[in-house]
Amino acid sequence: MPLEISQRNRQASAAVQPFLNFHFNSAYTRLAGLPDVIDFTYGNPNEMAIPGFAAALQTWSEPRDRSWYAYKLSESQAQQAAAESLKRHRGLDFDPNTICMTNGGFGAISLAINTLVDAGDEVIFNTPPWFFYDAIITNAGGTSVRVHVRDDDFDLDLSAIEAAITPKTRAVLVNSPNNPTGRIYPEATLKALADILERASARIGRRIYLLSDEAYSRIVFDGQVCPSPTSYYPYSLLLYTYGKTLLTPGQRVGFIGLPSTLPDRHELFNAILTTQISLGWLFPNALLQHALGDLEKLSIDMGHLQQKRDMMVGALREMGYEVHNPEATFYLLPKSPLADDPEFCRQLTEHKILVLPGTVVELPGYFRISLTANDDMIKRSLPGFEAAINAVRG
Amino acid sequence: MPLEISQRNRQASAAVQPFLNFHFNSAYTRLAGLPDVIDFTYGNPNEMAIPGFAAALQTWSEPRDRSWYAYKLSESQAQQAAAESLKRHRGLDFDPNTICMTNGGFGAISLAINTLVDAGDEVIFNTPPWFFYDAIITNAGGTSVRVHVRDDDFDLDLSAIEAAITPKTRAVLVNSPNNPTGRIYPEATLKALADILERASARIGRRIYLLSDEAYSRIVFDGQVCPSPTSYYPYSLLLYTYGKTLLTPGQRVGFIGLPSTLPDRHELFNAILTTQISLGWLFPNALLQHALGDLEKLSIDMGHLQQKRDMMVGALREMGYEVHNPEATFYLLPKSPLADDPEFCRQLTEHKILVLPGTVVELPGYFRISLTANDDMIKRSLPGFEAAINAVRG
Repeated sequence: MPLEISQRNRQASAAVQPFLNFHFNSAYTRLAGLPDVIDFTYGNPNEMAIPGFAAALQTWSEPRDRSWYAYKLSESQAQQAAAESLKRHRGLDFDPNTICMTNGGFGAISLAINTLVDAGDEVIFNTPPWFFYDAIITNAGGTSVRVHVRDDDFDLDLSAIEAAITPKTRAVLVNSPNNPTGRIYPEATLKALADILERASARIGRRIYLLSDEAYSRIVFDGQVCPSPTSYYPYSLLLYTYGKTLLTPGQRVGFIGLPSTLPDRHELFNAILTTQISLGWLFPNALLQHALGDLEKLSIDMGHLQQKRDMMVGALREMGYEVHNPEATFYLLPKSPLADDPEFCRQLTEHKILVLPGTVVELPGYFRISLTANDDMIKRSLPGFEAAINAVRG
Repeated sequence: MPLEISQRNRQASAAVQPFLNFHFNSAYTRLAGLPDVIDFTYGNPNEMAIPGFAAALQTWSEPRDRSWYAYKLSESQAQQAAAESLKRHRGLDFDPNTICMTNGGFGAISLAINTLVDAGDEVIFNTPPWFFYDAIITNAGGTSVRVHVRDDDFDLDLSAIEAAITPKTRAVLVNSPNNPTGRIYPEATLKALADILERASARIGRRIYLLSDEAYSRIVFDGQVCPSPTSYYPYSLLLYTYGKTLLTPGQRVGFIGLPSTLPDRHELFNAILTTQISLGWLFPNALLQHALGDLEKLSIDMGHLQQKRDMMVGALREMGYEVHNPEATFYLLPKSPLADDPEFCRQLTEHKILVLPGTVVELPGYFRISLTANDDMIKRSLPGFEAAINAVRG
């Protein structure tokens, strides 16, 4: 008898396979972690955790009452910290009582989709996508519908989104600032998107939700403001994680914020609570909820990140790479000098440089560089990047 | 338009409603936490966290490398600690490489079911059940099939389990030591269960998995040994949480152990990995995985717990309550002096005592007392328990 698992699992496995192949069965797998290899692949930390992070965990580890480590739901002081943060950093008004505390942004996305989606429901997302949207949607029984962003400026392709909506559409998932393109969708785009969703919901006689993945909303450059898609369309869920702002994705804390303009938001909060329970008590750990007021005040050094962006963009352009200047996020997205981006990434490994081939995120002809690399890594990498492009040019 | 959420969510909400009603909309809700109220309802801590717990978190909070708080999967030193624990405490041989680290036992149960179950698949569990089995199965699209344990001794009703198996049966879920009955299923029962599952799998031409919820396997009295159901049937998943042993359910860490006798266990490990990713990166936090070797050495004071059991069982019997002596777990399960257990529980609230009505866990005519109460709570409660039974007897 072959291993008998669910069809749902087999389909989700197929959806996650491009990532798993890359991570567990590629040149990346063989080289990552070796001495002298310079790894720009993921948005993972390459410096010690930011000052204050461990201290906050240590301070709040000390139990102050008997229930310190009891079962936790969405705890009110954590909801309060999240609401204050949205107000302070972004000018957004959210009611703490309808903020669902989650195990990071990954948990937030999964909870939103598992609460809303039945078998056969369609969820539209924009490509190039984050690695795991398809697997989350597929595992929930939904159908992924892809819409490519505009080639020229990576903004949303609104008419393509509108054309992709069918009577089965349950949600549209938007990620701004965008991983991997570094694009912040402008207010005009978001207002037009809201109009489309409002009209389309009326047309199909069924509410289309806007799922707004805002993991990088505090990783913005040049003092830019990142408007929240949730400000323009009431049927929105704001999905956030502290994993990017603090660069500590191994300690999982984030939230789903339900806008005050969302009708039935208390009922939706309760529906999400059911999913949190039914998927395995998906609330952040007690310690992270206790510490959130302190963690909330911390951030990676954005000035330093911006320096690294400027230095790297400048150096790559000087070598002849075509690379746009991201407005936000951890990522640069140069065009691959070879149309075959996996082959160019293989050639970079000859210079001990690891980057993410665009094909892994459905964007052939590009590769992704994470600016979470430290200064030394960047400096050591430049001769390799130069040699690789020169070799292509012959 | 009414709130539009998934049918799956509505069905899971219905499954979790008895718990939610009790927790959020009952005498419990109004009274829990008030001064002088003595709350025996849940297996929650009523003393400060055990010595060493906070210290372990503090020690391991200090980052020792750049990846300390990076994304974590099932980390090898945590898998190793889990495997060593199974060997040391229970004499069980598990390969660390096929231990899936999870967000507690709740996460382990959800991951197992979401990996195995498709829409329409049946999962058999024994009643009285843990609060959340039905919601987890229902949310995964499965169908819950209930089999009542034997009335006389709370052992598994093997012929009823056999009779409940159909061609749609995907798994049988067993919880030993059992919450709420305190029963450890004996080896003879588990061997007979294995025979039934082996025969039935052959008969229906489809593998039936045994899901073994062993959350209380280290909460045993009188030096008893708790045999693992996974030792007798190869197609088993051992589901464990540290939340009971450490009495810190707010810090979520546990695992799924795949026995070395399980064919295709590496493939199943990978299938569970897909589910862990697709449900929202369901791995324990980095800190808990770093600390697990130290946490593993800790336990609540089992001598003290046994003293509380003995004292409480003795006192209740002397008052005239019919209560059996649990072999394990946190719980006493006295018969309600009134057939209407919610009414008797309401009468106990007049003495400021909160307990769990049996009806909430599908066992009318009983109520559950948690021995995680502290000595003072137990002492203060005795006059109330006595007055309540005397009032019934008139």
